[in-house]
Amino acid sequence: MELKLSKKITKPDFQGEFTASILAAAASPDIISFAGGLPNPVSFPVEEMDAAVHKVMQEKGAVALQYSNTQGYQPLRAWIAKRYEVLGVNDVVADDIIITNGSQQALEMVGAALIDPGDKILVENPTYLVALQSFHLFDPEVIPVQINPDGIDCDKLQAAIDANPEAKFIYVIPNFQNPTGLTYSREVRERAAEIFKNSNLLVLEDNPYSELRFAGEGGKSFGYYLGEQCCMFGTFSKIVSPGMRIGWICCRNKELKAKLLSYKSTADLHTNIFCQMVLAQYLAAYDLDQHIEKTKVLYKQKAEFMMDCMRKYLPEGVTFTPTEGGMFLWAELPDGITAVDLYRAGLKRGVAICPGDPFYEYERNVRTFRINYSNSTDEAIETGMKVLGEVCSELMAK
Amino acid sequence: MELKLSKKITKPDFQGEFTASILAAAASPDIISFAGGLPNPVSFPVEEMDAAVHKVMQEKGAVALQYSNTQGYQPLRAWIAKRYEVLGVNDVVADDIIITNGSQQALEMVGAALIDPGDKILVENPTYLVALQSFHLFDPEVIPVQINPDGIDCDKLQAAIDANPEAKFIYVIPNFQNPTGLTYSREVRERAAEIFKNSNLLVLEDNPYSELRFAGEGGKSFGYYLGEQCCMFGTFSKIVSPGMRIGWICCRNKELKAKLLSYKSTADLHTNIFCQMVLAQYLAAYDLDQHIEKTKVLYKQKAEFMMDCMRKYLPEGVTFTPTEGGMFLWAELPDGITAVDLYRAGLKRGVAICPGDPFYEYERNVRTFRINYSNSTDEAIETGMKVLGEVCSELMAK
Repeated sequence: MELKLSKKITKPDFQGEFTASILAAAASPDIISFAGGLPNPVSFPVEEMDAAVHKVMQEKGAVALQYSNTQGYQPLRAWIAKRYEVLGVNDVVADDIIITNGSQQALEMVGAALIDPGDKILVENPTYLVALQSFHLFDPEVIPVQINPDGIDCDKLQAAIDANPEAKFIYVIPNFQNPTGLTYSREVRERAAEIFKNSNLLVLEDNPYSELRFAGEGGKSFGYYLGEQCCMFGTFSKIVSPGMRIGWICCRNKELKAKLLSYKSTADLHTNIFCQMVLAQYLAAYDLDQHIEKTKVLYKQKAEFMMDCMRKYLPEGVTFTPTEGGMFLWAELPDGITAVDLYRAGLKRGVAICPGDPFYEYERNVRTFRINYSNSTDEAIETGMKVLGEVCSELMAK
Repeated sequence: MELKLSKKITKPDFQGEFTASILAAAASPDIISFAGGLPNPVSFPVEEMDAAVHKVMQEKGAVALQYSNTQGYQPLRAWIAKRYEVLGVNDVVADDIIITNGSQQALEMVGAALIDPGDKILVENPTYLVALQSFHLFDPEVIPVQINPDGIDCDKLQAAIDANPEAKFIYVIPNFQNPTGLTYSREVRERAAEIFKNSNLLVLEDNPYSELRFAGEGGKSFGYYLGEQCCMFGTFSKIVSPGMRIGWICCRNKELKAKLLSYKSTADLHTNIFCQMVLAQYLAAYDLDQHIEKTKVLYKQKAEFMMDCMRKYLPEGVTFTPTEGGMFLWAELPDGITAVDLYRAGLKRGVAICPGDPFYEYERNVRTFRINYSNSTDEAIETGMKVLGEVCSELMAK
């Protein structure tokens, strides 16, 4: 038998192959890795979850083990709807929420529901690499729009929309963006919202990190400014547990919601109801804000220690943007050195970073790189950053 | 904003719409429904699962809540690999297994990995409606091959292959097929295997029900006859719990396996590791065969009682194929009455069946219908079948 694969699955996947090779190398136990993006397991509510499971199994065991509905467990959806108040969106109801297998499945679902081959879509440049991979499954033309330290570049955004009025949607991560850690300022948020309002774009707002703000003040969701023109993605992965794979889409456009549900019902019927019920019980029995507070104290300390070490050990010419939350820092090398150079030389000395390349649709051999601080010991942070500083100096001296 | 959906999501979905309308009507608490396909919750190991969760949380809580790998939890994959011995396939290893969100996700994954628009694929006629829906996402030309009481019609199979040598795969359910409940005889299995061997077809074998055999003797998997030419799907949904959404693909073709993994890693990263670990712990601590034995005793009694009632209450001219396992019976009305007629008239009297229509790619207004017996009380079975008998008689008298 000669295996005949589809064109979809055999086309090049720069983002996937690049990242797979990096994460495989970085996964070795001898390596100090700032390349990944794992939450710190210290932040997982293991005992509380154990108690929550026990209660669910005692009271509703047969329901948790049976088939369920595609949209998701109603009490969990109601909790999520109410939670949107922290983002300034007060009119979300449980019926607007679709539970997904992590917000990653949400990306694939909107890709399937919206993109025909050749359709134009807008993204921030750089943007989350898995969003690029998901959208690529459906063969769009990707139009990247520059992101600045205070958020998306509004002039360039307006120009991109004017040049591509038929574009279907824009995908944005306005809070502690992955990879850059950048957050839109209030001014940029309001101006971008006005630009979106006057466009024909659906706005897909991804928001895994806003609850992890340990300094400064957060902004409102585009869902506040745009109503049903904005579809909001969320996840419990960074605030409770990624292993349960529970994310969601908040979709207030009824037509789109119906199509997303019909797609998910074909793709995998429903997200595991067992974990949905356990999570809902956990959220009902415990104070999530208290739990997040503990995580934020931990991440604040990690971020500040990482920034201190970067200031102390990286040579002049290597810059980075300070952050007030999330899990990542974004740094830039001086002219003449690429992030892949640094990645390769660092790995030889036992320290891994994530080069910026896979976060761009078109740019290659970039000078930017991503540093994760959530999941390293202080010792690893200091040792690793010392090594990276030495490696940078060596590369710059060449 | 004008919503611009993809062609994929807006094309007609006969199977989906038909089934959604039927299941919605059948879900009313006043209705006796033989239309669905739920396992009986009496068969769920609630207490054992509670103990398994507790042990996992005590011993490996942080691992169960953290991100994991795309392929799935190794001890669970090893258990599944070993289990293939009951199907006569002794050379499966853990590395051949990919854990999926129920075997339903497996259908979507192989569709994505194999089908380009216009590609020919073969299926049994009738076949599992969600398989048709999943494959339709990728726009194949579906070529149905008749299934007889002893399995696929081998002459028609050979003719279909001869007429379509470029077809990419065939999807088969050789044991207690959904919807028909039919099982391939040993003769048909061996002859079909020979035909497949001499073809260029990949064989996708779905097998949710073979462990639910309560009489007679089961046959070997096509994986035994065909090696890596056969990809085998499985699920814990019918033998432990559908709510956990844990199924698998056993793919011994390395190239296809790599592509399926890369697709899943983009689609939703990995199946929830929490439930994978709990299930692996449950399987390690308890005897699954004992648990299945209890379920089989229950389903045998249900099936026999349903068949007794069908013989007693359905008028002459309405026929059905007896079964030795699984969850369904397949019946046929006499000339002049469609299954949708029976469905509509039955529903008015408070009893729902599932008309055969959505299980066919092309035929409509068929006379066949599916009866589920796993999830009804004896009282509901007797009352419901009495009503269906009366309704059939009335329709036949018209």
